[in-house]
Amino acid sequence: MKKKRIKPFRPIYPSPAALITSVDPDGKPNILTLAEVFNISIRKPVIIGIAIRPATYSHKLISQTREYVVNLPKASMKVQVDACGSVSGRSGVDKFEAFGLTPVASAEVRPPLVAECPVNIECKVLGIQTIGDHDLFLGEVVAVHADEDVLDERDSIISAKVDMLAYITGEYWDVGQMLGKHGLSNEGEAA
Amino acid sequence: MKKKRIKPFRPIYPSPAALITSVDPDGKPNILTLAEVFNISIRKPVIIGIAIRPATYSHKLISQTREYVVNLPKASMKVQVDACGSVSGRSGVDKFEAFGLTPVASAEVRPPLVAECPVNIECKVLGIQTIGDHDLFLGEVVAVHADEDVLDERDSIISAKVDMLAYITGEYWDVGQMLGKHGLSNEGEAA
Repeated sequence: MKKKRIKPFRPIYPSPAALITSVDPDGKPNILTLAEVFNISIRKPVIIGIAIRPATYSHKLISQTREYVVNLPKASMKVQVDACGSVSGRSGVDKFEAFGLTPVASAEVRPPLVAECPVNIECKVLGIQTIGDHDLFLGEVVAVHADEDVLDERDSIISAKVDMLAYITGEYWDVGQMLGKHGLSNEGEAA
Repeated sequence: MKKKRIKPFRPIYPSPAALITSVDPDGKPNILTLAEVFNISIRKPVIIGIAIRPATYSHKLISQTREYVVNLPKASMKVQVDACGSVSGRSGVDKFEAFGLTPVASAEVRPPLVAECPVNIECKVLGIQTIGDHDLFLGEVVAVHADEDVLDERDSIISAKVDMLAYITGEYWDVGQMLGKHGLSNEGEAA
């Protein structure tokens, strides 16, 4: 296939479309929709990153309180996910109330979980650094919660049950089929 | 839904399953499969991050040469993607030859593009930092290439044509349906 050189812009796909909860110093929560959410340190310790534009209200709140929760929504929540990313928390709108979402107390941090999201990841900020037009907030994962009905008997998340939502260059997508597990090339599945 | 607290481990999904190309000081290429690949700075400039375990051969090569290419594979390449992640470049195996992949000269860096991947992102390392059990390689994107048949008339990538592959906690998935575009909550699609 012939290749063409194109202009760089947000080139990596797919990303999660995640709801980030934070609180102001009085404990009032806000919700930000972000695609720039990622695993960095996998196990010892578990550290994730989120990249936020400095102009956002959530940037201010998380810089102050140094805590956030990453809530991974279902594809069926696409309208709420998009709406949370379309209104600034500075407007005073209570996005939980406005968009029919339910705050639930976290275990280790002040920002609430979004009850409707099947997976919720509580984080404490380890560091903040400016990288181009976004600031990277490294977060140590201090607690993870999942809906009981998406867990197997070993408390691992069953991917097929979380109704994943992906963000791909301005579009929301659901995921399709599980094609195989890591190691499939050693298991006689090679074509 | 009742929530259960579970053990943290690589909590964010979905991620891309990307092929990272690098070269040794003599120009011999290697390929690493990574899920920890993400957008950070979207536009000015475009900066991505990749997180690599220090023990890998690619970590050594990219630390030396400070260049890498992120190649985004098709779901139909799942066996090759898995195979590239199952063999160390230290073994001397030529992964291009062993797994039927084709190197193509890059425009701005020494590591080659993987011709079979519809999107290829050339990067120069801006910085390397240890974050827990992985090292984060920040990369300024110096060129992006795409197969001509995945581009629209404005040279934007048509998501439905790239046969995306996602990595989700040890599993490979394809993507499903496009559910709507950013802004859908303002367009009367709200349920």
